[in-house]
Amino acid sequence: MSKIRVVVAGYGNVGRGVIAALKNNPDMECAGIVSRNPDRVKKTVSDLPVMQIADTDAWISALQPDVAILCGGSKDDLPAQGPALCGKVNTVDSFDNHSRIPEYFHAMDAAATASGHVAVISTGWDPGIFSLERVLGNAFLPGSRAYGFYGLGEAGGLSMGHSDALRTIPGVKDARQYTHAIPEAIEKVRRGENPQFAPGDMHTRVCFVVLEDGADPEKIAAAIRTMPGYFAPYQTEVNFVSQEYLDEKCSGFPHDGLVVAAGVTGKGNPATVEYRCQWGSNPEATANVMVAHARAAVRLANEKRSGAFTILDIPASYFSLASKEELLAKFM
Amino acid sequence: MSKIRVVVAGYGNVGRGVIAALKNNPDMECAGIVSRNPDRVKKTVSDLPVMQIADTDAWISALQPDVAILCGGSKDDLPAQGPALCGKVNTVDSFDNHSRIPEYFHAMDAAATASGHVAVISTGWDPGIFSLERVLGNAFLPGSRAYGFYGLGEAGGLSMGHSDALRTIPGVKDARQYTHAIPEAIEKVRRGENPQFAPGDMHTRVCFVVLEDGADPEKIAAAIRTMPGYFAPYQTEVNFVSQEYLDEKCSGFPHDGLVVAAGVTGKGNPATVEYRCQWGSNPEATANVMVAHARAAVRLANEKRSGAFTILDIPASYFSLASKEELLAKFM
Repeated sequence: MSKIRVVVAGYGNVGRGVIAALKNNPDMECAGIVSRNPDRVKKTVSDLPVMQIADTDAWISALQPDVAILCGGSKDDLPAQGPALCGKVNTVDSFDNHSRIPEYFHAMDAAATASGHVAVISTGWDPGIFSLERVLGNAFLPGSRAYGFYGLGEAGGLSMGHSDALRTIPGVKDARQYTHAIPEAIEKVRRGENPQFAPGDMHTRVCFVVLEDGADPEKIAAAIRTMPGYFAPYQTEVNFVSQEYLDEKCSGFPHDGLVVAAGVTGKGNPATVEYRCQWGSNPEATANVMVAHARAAVRLANEKRSGAFTILDIPASYFSLASKEELLAKFM
Repeated sequence: MSKIRVVVAGYGNVGRGVIAALKNNPDMECAGIVSRNPDRVKKTVSDLPVMQIADTDAWISALQPDVAILCGGSKDDLPAQGPALCGKVNTVDSFDNHSRIPEYFHAMDAAATASGHVAVISTGWDPGIFSLERVLGNAFLPGSRAYGFYGLGEAGGLSMGHSDALRTIPGVKDARQYTHAIPEAIEKVRRGENPQFAPGDMHTRVCFVVLEDGADPEKIAAAIRTMPGYFAPYQTEVNFVSQEYLDEKCSGFPHDGLVVAAGVTGKGNPATVEYRCQWGSNPEATANVMVAHARAAVRLANEKRSGAFTILDIPASYFSLASKEELLAKFM
């Protein structure tokens, strides 16, 4: 059987993770990389074709992808790139701006339906696996609410978005932000209280900040703690550190999370369902999940399906390399 | 919108759980109960039609079910009942003899396909939710193995099968068996060792046994500990107790479990995914999951699909009462 040919669109942390993940999936191969800046990519990649992402027809013709995995960001890249590309090739992306998912879904659905392609959107672990677990928790325990917590481990979870926000503050040279779940909040949910939480009731934020020469730490700490949306609603700890400390102690991308729903069955028997994931590398986790969705996208396309899909629209068997008989015998 | 009409076939613990669960699902209603012994059921049920299960054409005509939830056992009831019924009505069952699932699937698939019905088999939490989590774990972390553990809480999980096995021993008047996961085994899996386990490496078994008058406790303890398959491979604790103790301390059906898979992403970043459930009532948990699958069965039938399905073949959205737009806006 010929391998599924995957083009990786965008060569950041997630794109590199996708290339690594494809090597662990024997039914797939990387057909090439497309990037806004092929020359930069070619400096580190010599064993794969690298082409200009804007030359869509050229790379589709040259690389013959069954599916393109879009590794761009949700803010600037995907809103334009996604609908343009899924009009020409099957796509998988990790669009993760939760509040804009309905709008993005409909834009992708219109473009993919019109061209007869499959666009699997918003894959990864949240949105993605966590979305699935929220739906299952609610379906199997009607009336329960599913809560998401992040950064349960000692180190917390690195938030790229909040780290970026810190770096926008004048006087901040570099920074990382770790999210920590509040254990008491998790216990409230596990006890079946279905509590109403403000964001600050569930998580705290710990910042490691490198200052520019001459910057005023007190002023910057105040600017961080009062930043609307990002930090103001949370208990926020600000640590000023050296660039060496940041490079040494905060270099990875660890993250982890928990979906938990608690309710009752029958006449009041307690019931709790939880999904927990821990990732040494957040972008590689997203990449692994995207690759399994690329397999599903190709299967859907082979069935002559088209339009936009999320993880909620796809049977689990489509993500798996195992055959129907293997699934029945070994996984059920 | 008219409600989904559900017939409950079999009025044991699971059947009672299904009737209770239907009340928490506003899009469904119980159309009636069918049983091998309607007179017995009528003694406790007065608000629902109760009919003889063998009179299939009569109850299908009278109760007009959209789907029947089969609450019989996997050993004696379902192998004959399942294929016979899914030839006449859409069905959901909880066939849980893992090694015979492929055979049962094909029998159900043949009957349901021939008659144009949908048969969703082997629902519940294991097989069922755990099967789904095993497939997702393996798909998102290729090369990892997903392990199942049961009875992680202090009380352990009540195993009906092992309790029944104890009661077959001459001299045993009544008994309950609690399964306990071995914490060290879970830690091995979490560390990513992907260990090879014998059954006794993962679980221990704790028995509470009421003796018949004059029975020899030492002989019975030996008979338990050497029972092939059920107890011989495990470290087994045998406690002899009074009927009063058993009735008071061991009356519920608590159970819980964990699916855990550990592996690496990229070039060796550790990754762990876990699904954990805790049920005050095991049969009610199964019932809740079956009811969500009944919704899915009707949706599949409405799409003119037919044949046998497992949880692996059904998109998560089919289990949910939420609309497509609600799912995109609130669950993704």
